[in-house]
Amino acid sequence: MRARDLYLGIDLGGSKILCGVVTANGKILSRAKSATPFAEGSAALLEALRATASAAMQEAGIPRARLAAIGMGSPGPLDPARGTILRTPNIAVKKLAVGPWLSRQLEAPVFLDNDVHMAVYGEWLAGAARGMRRVVGLWIGTGVGGCVLWEGRVVHGINRNAGEIGHMVLDARRARPGKARGTLEWEASKTGIARHLRKAVRRGKKSKLARRVERGGERLHSTDLAKAFEAGDRPTVAAVENSARYVGLAIANLFDVLAPELFVLGGGVSAALGSPYLELVRRAAREHAFTTELARPRIVLSRLKDDAGLLGAALAARDGRGRPEGAPGGSDPASP
Amino acid sequence: MRARDLYLGIDLGGSKILCGVVTANGKILSRAKSATPFAEGSAALLEALRATASAAMQEAGIPRARLAAIGMGSPGPLDPARGTILRTPNIAVKKLAVGPWLSRQLEAPVFLDNDVHMAVYGEWLAGAARGMRRVVGLWIGTGVGGCVLWEGRVVHGINRNAGEIGHMVLDARRARPGKARGTLEWEASKTGIARHLRKAVRRGKKSKLARRVERGGERLHSTDLAKAFEAGDRPTVAAVENSARYVGLAIANLFDVLAPELFVLGGGVSAALGSPYLELVRRAAREHAFTTELARPRIVLSRLKDDAGLLGAALAARDGRGRPEGAPGGSDPASP
Repeated sequence: MRARDLYLGIDLGGSKILCGVVTANGKILSRAKSATPFAEGSAALLEALRATASAAMQEAGIPRARLAAIGMGSPGPLDPARGTILRTPNIAVKKLAVGPWLSRQLEAPVFLDNDVHMAVYGEWLAGAARGMRRVVGLWIGTGVGGCVLWEGRVVHGINRNAGEIGHMVLDARRARPGKARGTLEWEASKTGIARHLRKAVRRGKKSKLARRVERGGERLHSTDLAKAFEAGDRPTVAAVENSARYVGLAIANLFDVLAPELFVLGGGVSAALGSPYLELVRRAAREHAFTTELARPRIVLSRLKDDAGLLGAALAARDGRGRPEGAPGGSDPASP
Repeated sequence: MRARDLYLGIDLGGSKILCGVVTANGKILSRAKSATPFAEGSAALLEALRATASAAMQEAGIPRARLAAIGMGSPGPLDPARGTILRTPNIAVKKLAVGPWLSRQLEAPVFLDNDVHMAVYGEWLAGAARGMRRVVGLWIGTGVGGCVLWEGRVVHGINRNAGEIGHMVLDARRARPGKARGTLEWEASKTGIARHLRKAVRRGKKSKLARRVERGGERLHSTDLAKAFEAGDRPTVAAVENSARYVGLAIANLFDVLAPELFVLGGGVSAALGSPYLELVRRAAREHAFTTELARPRIVLSRLKDDAGLLGAALAARDGRGRPEGAPGGSDPASP
């Protein structure tokens, strides 16, 4: 019988679940994908996770006995120590002990952490942030997530959920306690872009994406967005520019406060829109940063793209076994 | 002849200059104070700094030969390596090599850093933040400054001026590149409070502070503000509540991103208004922080008050001699 030498990475997003079997040196052996049942509740979500994980293992052709550990990234807030999702704005579950459940199902330890913590950890080990000591990641997808990686450690902070850049209030006059309006996520996420488009259509503007943004905008895929943007669809361009401006403002704010070596942009929206989006973000960030005499914000796109989350999660599970300081889901002794 | 065993701390603020002679173990032997000639240009500012420093040394009765080093805190942006103030929004100087000049005048090395870096370093060594590993300071005075102290090191970042929390954009819809409107400082500083009061008076509201907030509001002292607030002067209460809400929102944003152990509030406005202001800030921060299930933001007032800046500066000069990592004005090897 072979040793337990492989890792399973799970990336739970607001739109899709990605799973992959990964070797100890970071090679991805298989991938599986399914749509996130975001509105159907706990049982449906757990079953989808189990099924997608099994599909990845089947695809790689490996038996369960070779799984050393599982890393799972999930939108927050969550309790990494207990493996529990506390609540998530974009998926209808509450206080879900997904870590212990998956651990019983797949017979391996599960390390749960924020999805963007996992992705930025992946970028730091094997992608756009290699060799950097201070990195801030912003992931623009269905929602907006973030991660601060400081001196090679993911910052969890005293609430264990640091890095929630998407909830940064950027419109104080519209912000109300407990409401998403006025935050970065409200303006910059795919959901926010869809809302802007929907409003434009209601005001009588013509857009290729009119049908896609009806109701909650769940039918708007990042690739549709990219196509309409590239075609110069006016309301789409305006909504994307607005999204990029808010991301740039958040980066300017964080540059003024922390001035890290690098900002990494990831997530479905920034991956689909690519360089033109990056340039819009860069311009806003550089225009609004306060102190740029001695250095300007440096912003790049994720290099691992769709793999960042599952690869980072698998490697966090690998590193979590030895519990180095600051691996996602691992211990973080500096934060009591 | 005695050894060079004493330190001079200088705290240059938008309203006043504070100087003090400090022993190696942090005892303040003397203090001197003067008004900042904020509008008169470089020569007047340098002369005021020299005169106030001399007054502090005379007051302590020590000869120049006992000065081991000088620490100076100044509003930014500045270049700590060269001892140069690059520009400052509240004092009319540009590219002023104050460190080298003072060093020649007083015949001792000068360590220049951001005023709030110095103050928070003081609070960390001898005040409200003792024993904490991750601290964020917000100083509410003529302007709004800040400091991130991480694992016992002041974060300078790649632009050498990290911690500029006052320039955080909180009203994206009003923010324009290079303009202060829309930032935390615009709303929360004494200057911002004076602007709100002035507008209220112009709209016909009655206020005890009407005369004090004419023109730029330079005649509004924090103690006046505190008296009018305590007396229930309506426009003052509204302007102070607005200031505290913005400070609370900035803290909520930084709690979501970094979740440090402690936030420290300092500066003239928060010192004069005291606990009622702290409570308003706390309420806004706690209402707007996104993830508080596992820990809530912890916010306290500066303990060293007016001494924080000069004491921190003197001790940074002490520690700068040995150049420990992250002492203000010292080297910060993690930030290339």
